[in-house]
Amino acid sequence: MGGDKNTVDALTQRSMADIASERAATSFPIGVLSVYVDRGRERHEARKAAHSLIARDSAIAFSADASPFDLARKQLREKTNAQVQRVRHLRRHAKDALSRDALALAACELSESLGMKLYVHDALYVASINLFGTPEQIAHFLPLDLDPRVNGCFAMTELGHSSSLQDLETTATYIPETREWSITSPTITSTKWWIGGAGGTATHAVMVSQTSIKGTSYGLAWFIVQLRSIEDGRLLPGVVCGDVGAKAGRNGLDNGWIQLTGVRVPLNNMLMKWMQVDEEGNVSPPPHPAVMYATLIPERISSLTGIKILVAQSVTIACRYGVTRRQGPGNPQIIDFQAQTVNMLPLVAGIYVYMNTEKRMEARWNRLQIAATEDPDTYLKELPDIHCISAGLKAVGTWWGSHAFETCRRACGGHAYSSYNAIAGHIDDWGVFTTGGGDNFALMQQLS
Amino acid sequence: MGGDKNTVDALTQRSMADIASERAATSFPIGVLSVYVDRGRERHEARKAAHSLIARDSAIAFSADASPFDLARKQLREKTNAQVQRVRHLRRHAKDALSRDALALAACELSESLGMKLYVHDALYVASINLFGTPEQIAHFLPLDLDPRVNGCFAMTELGHSSSLQDLETTATYIPETREWSITSPTITSTKWWIGGAGGTATHAVMVSQTSIKGTSYGLAWFIVQLRSIEDGRLLPGVVCGDVGAKAGRNGLDNGWIQLTGVRVPLNNMLMKWMQVDEEGNVSPPPHPAVMYATLIPERISSLTGIKILVAQSVTIACRYGVTRRQGPGNPQIIDFQAQTVNMLPLVAGIYVYMNTEKRMEARWNRLQIAATEDPDTYLKELPDIHCISAGLKAVGTWWGSHAFETCRRACGGHAYSSYNAIAGHIDDWGVFTTGGGDNFALMQQLS
Repeated sequence: MGGDKNTVDALTQRSMADIASERAATSFPIGVLSVYVDRGRERHEARKAAHSLIARDSAIAFSADASPFDLARKQLREKTNAQVQRVRHLRRHAKDALSRDALALAACELSESLGMKLYVHDALYVASINLFGTPEQIAHFLPLDLDPRVNGCFAMTELGHSSSLQDLETTATYIPETREWSITSPTITSTKWWIGGAGGTATHAVMVSQTSIKGTSYGLAWFIVQLRSIEDGRLLPGVVCGDVGAKAGRNGLDNGWIQLTGVRVPLNNMLMKWMQVDEEGNVSPPPHPAVMYATLIPERISSLTGIKILVAQSVTIACRYGVTRRQGPGNPQIIDFQAQTVNMLPLVAGIYVYMNTEKRMEARWNRLQIAATEDPDTYLKELPDIHCISAGLKAVGTWWGSHAFETCRRACGGHAYSSYNAIAGHIDDWGVFTTGGGDNFALMQQLS
Repeated sequence: MGGDKNTVDALTQRSMADIASERAATSFPIGVLSVYVDRGRERHEARKAAHSLIARDSAIAFSADASPFDLARKQLREKTNAQVQRVRHLRRHAKDALSRDALALAACELSESLGMKLYVHDALYVASINLFGTPEQIAHFLPLDLDPRVNGCFAMTELGHSSSLQDLETTATYIPETREWSITSPTITSTKWWIGGAGGTATHAVMVSQTSIKGTSYGLAWFIVQLRSIEDGRLLPGVVCGDVGAKAGRNGLDNGWIQLTGVRVPLNNMLMKWMQVDEEGNVSPPPHPAVMYATLIPERISSLTGIKILVAQSVTIACRYGVTRRQGPGNPQIIDFQAQTVNMLPLVAGIYVYMNTEKRMEARWNRLQIAATEDPDTYLKELPDIHCISAGLKAVGTWWGSHAFETCRRACGGHAYSSYNAIAGHIDDWGVFTTGGGDNFALMQQLS
């Protein structure tokens, strides 16, 4: 390439032209496919609007001199917290559910830390109240969500046990005299660990705990536990929290640990849709133990959303790199090398497979959630099946994601070692999906 | 596990006891194996001494409140620069070659950034002068290495081309009138890129460049180019350098870019062991073009050293985690689960395979380096063979390394998402080996 044409401007123009000519060469109208990917024209428009809204909002968008790849952990935390407040504000004032959903998706596409922090509050904390609470409890606890100072977290995993839920050690003991629960972390290994938001910002937790009632253990139940003051963020008496420090990804999210020492909460803070305890301590057990872990099902389905967002981003980056990168004698586009084509095309196809699987699983879960209230028998009958399928899909899909990321990284050659390429960060972060939300080895055994 | 025994002290003691009992159960004396791994008693003792020396040296060791996982990029840079100065000082004053080598290995085992920064100076910059320089040039240029203010870098890769070396664009034009070379980066794509040390600290580069002599191109040759003043670190006239920013790993090393605009260096700054140019511009070409790329051979062999150090660290971490982590009903050690055993044991075996391969390849390369001076015919005859073998081993070995890292990460469950587990960092960093030093796809084609 001659010197005259070899300027930053000229190279940028050639890259744009390379991409434009590849797009022009498709055998289908790209706009139709975009609408299909976004599940219809309305959602497609809402998604575009959400992206242009956040791109213009300096509280949300990253500035060029403070990219998420360059910010130190402390600064990324501050930025993420500001983003969360702003996105929640925008979502509260969105004109309809479509716009609200589109804002959440756009936030996840912008930043894994931001997406996860929103997810923890909305899809773990609030969703658990909806899933495990009675209508009265939902009416009682959820209005709190409207207070922007409230940050919910989801306290399940403990330092000692996670895949082995029945071994969790945190214990809630019923005190009939005061109609309260006394919740305690009896050991070091019972410390709630990895809890997103617990490090510094969560004010409330939905926490799973063993139950001890009049000397008898009744297994796990979910409790609403306030951790910090919504006035000044101070830890409440009996609550100790800390930060788990540097992570492989999502360092804008303050994952932390929680230890409770005899923290008292009212009887009604146990979520009682499936298991009830009355003031005298009489227990009505759940119809099936599995209903108590049902939040794990949407969490596993959300790993397919992770594929749709993160793996698809990496595949897009690697394909665009292949189209615009020219190397070798005569400077062909490297996407035209056989090794690139053979590696990249199955990944593009795979994205569509998992995207459609996600759509179908989400629809099924949404139907089941309605059934949980309106037709509990159907809910209980279908739960084991969707539990197995979601466990297997999560394992198979996230392992495939690992393979896809590494393939994309290699397809970008040495430039994938740059953080700004983004794929290396996705690879590191992906442990959230392959191991978090249920270790894949354990999940495959549940499927088998 | 009861509360009484469940304290940090008690858990630590049980972990230590778990490890001790596994060690006691081996069918061979561990000390004998350690000596074998270190290639003999003397090297074993030297390695232990080097580790205890650096562990006590506050300029080198990381303090508990400033781990490499927590330091921001700027701080990690400062720490790495201080470490490099101190290790180079210790090595200059080491009592013998064994201690000097042991210090370098220990530094690589402590920090990838530190190891890479030492490697760039010693194994790329100095080694290139030895490999490409005449005895007179070696005597002329290498004493510079004794000045602690001199930092060498190795300027090969360009923004536009790396795997395709013959397409490199940097050009050195001979000026007979002044007996100088004028070296220029004619285009944006000719910018030297990824150059370790060029970002802020390198004072000298050994740089590969096209040669233009009396209007004729004679292919690639290596030049010594001073980039910065050794007095005050300022860039010399005609030299522009910058930092490439955040990377997937080794952020303590200042990888950077270099653009030259008509930088003049004396005729003798072209390294002339294999290709000679006299004052009139008469050229004696190299006996074989491959001799000009021979630094790539030890660089590829060093990827086996990378396996020995980094993959072995991850396998050790994952095995120890499996021995000390107890989860599930009855709390067995997770290493006793079949999935763990089946995954981990082949990795342990693989480490020994690559370790012995490295030993053999290093010995062969060391013999060849002596032959390069004493018996050039043998050197030229054997070069294509060791080139192919080292290319293939680098590709096969580093792909295996990727697999090994991901397996180790999964074997540590959710705790591998913590940066302090170290494996996630190794995974990200590993792109240096799978793609750097020759893309594996290209290398496999060279082997085939």
